[in-house]
Amino acid sequence: MKKRIEGLKKRMEDNGFDLVLLMHPQDVYYYAGTSQPCNLLVSLKEEPVLFVRRAWDFAKQETTLENLKFGASLGDLTKYLSSIGLNKGVLGLEEDVLPARLHRRIKEYFSDFKCENVSPLIMEQRLIKDEEEIDLVKKASSIYSHIHEAVMNNLRPGITEVELATKAWAAARKAGHEGVSVHRRWDGFLPGEGVVTSGENMWKISGYAMTVTGVGKSKAIPCGASDRVIQKGDLVLLDNGLNYQGYHGDIARTYVVGKADERQKEVFSSLLLIMEEILNHIREGIAVKDLYELAVNKASEEGYQEYFQGYGSQKGEYIGHGLGLEVDEPPVVGPHTDLKLREGMILAIEPKIIIPDWGAVDLEDTLCVTKEGCEIFSPVRRKLYEVE
Amino acid sequence: MKKRIEGLKKRMEDNGFDLVLLMHPQDVYYYAGTSQPCNLLVSLKEEPVLFVRRAWDFAKQETTLENLKFGASLGDLTKYLSSIGLNKGVLGLEEDVLPARLHRRIKEYFSDFKCENVSPLIMEQRLIKDEEEIDLVKKASSIYSHIHEAVMNNLRPGITEVELATKAWAAARKAGHEGVSVHRRWDGFLPGEGVVTSGENMWKISGYAMTVTGVGKSKAIPCGASDRVIQKGDLVLLDNGLNYQGYHGDIARTYVVGKADERQKEVFSSLLLIMEEILNHIREGIAVKDLYELAVNKASEEGYQEYFQGYGSQKGEYIGHGLGLEVDEPPVVGPHTDLKLREGMILAIEPKIIIPDWGAVDLEDTLCVTKEGCEIFSPVRRKLYEVE
Repeated sequence: MKKRIEGLKKRMEDNGFDLVLLMHPQDVYYYAGTSQPCNLLVSLKEEPVLFVRRAWDFAKQETTLENLKFGASLGDLTKYLSSIGLNKGVLGLEEDVLPARLHRRIKEYFSDFKCENVSPLIMEQRLIKDEEEIDLVKKASSIYSHIHEAVMNNLRPGITEVELATKAWAAARKAGHEGVSVHRRWDGFLPGEGVVTSGENMWKISGYAMTVTGVGKSKAIPCGASDRVIQKGDLVLLDNGLNYQGYHGDIARTYVVGKADERQKEVFSSLLLIMEEILNHIREGIAVKDLYELAVNKASEEGYQEYFQGYGSQKGEYIGHGLGLEVDEPPVVGPHTDLKLREGMILAIEPKIIIPDWGAVDLEDTLCVTKEGCEIFSPVRRKLYEVE
Repeated sequence: MKKRIEGLKKRMEDNGFDLVLLMHPQDVYYYAGTSQPCNLLVSLKEEPVLFVRRAWDFAKQETTLENLKFGASLGDLTKYLSSIGLNKGVLGLEEDVLPARLHRRIKEYFSDFKCENVSPLIMEQRLIKDEEEIDLVKKASSIYSHIHEAVMNNLRPGITEVELATKAWAAARKAGHEGVSVHRRWDGFLPGEGVVTSGENMWKISGYAMTVTGVGKSKAIPCGASDRVIQKGDLVLLDNGLNYQGYHGDIARTYVVGKADERQKEVFSSLLLIMEEILNHIREGIAVKDLYELAVNKASEEGYQEYFQGYGSQKGEYIGHGLGLEVDEPPVVGPHTDLKLREGMILAIEPKIIIPDWGAVDLEDTLCVTKEGCEIFSPVRRKLYEVE
């Protein structure tokens, strides 16, 4: 953690920040080792100070930082800054997540500071994972083997999506899932259970994610498992954000109830080739947009460009995303990301073919970029599983 | 829904707003009947317009509004406003949830408008529920009977908190739970499963809620069920935010594994008296702060003031909260809320006694305020359940 604070200070210096105030639980956890309600002040000159807003005993026991204060108010922060003679400069705030009203209050308290968005720096630092983080993502990903087993044991004609989802959930929780998939967003919602969907729900792209979403139980929460009764011959998808001690794996597999028919096999085998094309090219140094282009080209070659990553206006320009303390972190693996892969990046790669009035096939693997290629953490084979 | 838009326009007029732009899914759902990604524009002069950012087919089918446009960008909104000659005035935004960065972008696009926080007006309107909303809260609350049954059937010495939580979850989902409990907050997290906790975890107040929280599996997500193995004699709490078609019930019951000992009975019977004192006084016209004071006085009379709603610095000044489309809505039922109860308000009342190194007892009921009293929606009796 000391290294992380040093890394932040270096970035602050390079980008003209004098002071950073972090309030988002995942950022505080990253630098301070606790996700209790805290305000973390990092200045260039002093040791970082953790102002604990609640749950002092927890924060004290958990944090790796040495300077703790009990203080819930913004006044506590400015009083402290006065005491160390830091009264002006550039103040970094997490403006991608901090609500406007709170942001305004902070600006009032820090009226002699100039506020700027510090989240890009933080997310850039979090892009490259250290050994401990990589190990946790690996463990998170391994939870999928228990979900897979639950699917193989319970997926039958007559079971509903929700029933299957709760079987998978129970297995995941028992295997270590923290029970929450963390998203860095203010709107939208995805069920903690992940997406469990089937049949005609496979091509209905609903809600806040441009992917196979499921339709949920009602229009109030229109994603995830529904009460649809699964039938023989159905395609079924499980797509799970798995949280182990704060770090996420994100894995999806497609199943078919009974024997796959010819078209299901054919579409899936094309998807598999697209996935292999992507995975074969992942290594340090490749440009993210080149990776995306390779995937699109392969999808064309297979004859599925029209349905690759959705269809019509419901098409997403991406084949994956970073992840770590949040299920969805930079980079977007897509055509508009100007970035080369580096060792230690964690990615979820998720090609899919979604064909209206037919169905969808989807594969998602979580992996770590290495110098020569990548290490894939998904614990079950990439295949179209026939469940009988 | 037409009435809701009229109610909003009335409030806009009374408070000097010319235009309101809503982006938060629950607010959009309240006024437009869809929670798909949309921007809802309500002006004093024109019919409201729903700009659908994604999932057009869903939004079109779901919404009760007539004017729909497909448009994902802020430019689409300002272009439309120009076309109707609305180029300046006071613009209401949801500043309690809108991130600072997005807020700034909106201000750039709407540079001739003065932006103000419209969320208090919206939450004030949402305070009084209509018949349909009350019916959904009732149905949400009834889900607890299935959770209760799962607890009675599965709570035994040797089961872990997480195992019990997944049994309760499966029952709740099967009975209609949408799978997500919606919170209007940017930070913190509570597991969708709710709080399932026991034994020494009962008095460890962790994380973002000042209540019996549970400690979770790790410090990364420090609330909810843990891997603790439940023992004979343990107190066990289930506290669940239940979502039925978008509306929440919030219900908690305390259980004991085996026969309750004398102290457990005694503390619980005091809690029951406090709860009855509160419930007996709820009716249209009573001031929220008087209700709070009655509860605190009763807790004193019973000798538990020190432990009522927590202890030491971990004490919450509240005995309940509003709820509806979100689990936690205004009002806070506490000493700082200047409000009288009105017919149609939905409240969750949750007195608790938390004694360090001993345990905790907790009761939570969801109810609707009526002219003469209240209608309580919780489907299971208030008692300390001995599970053998």
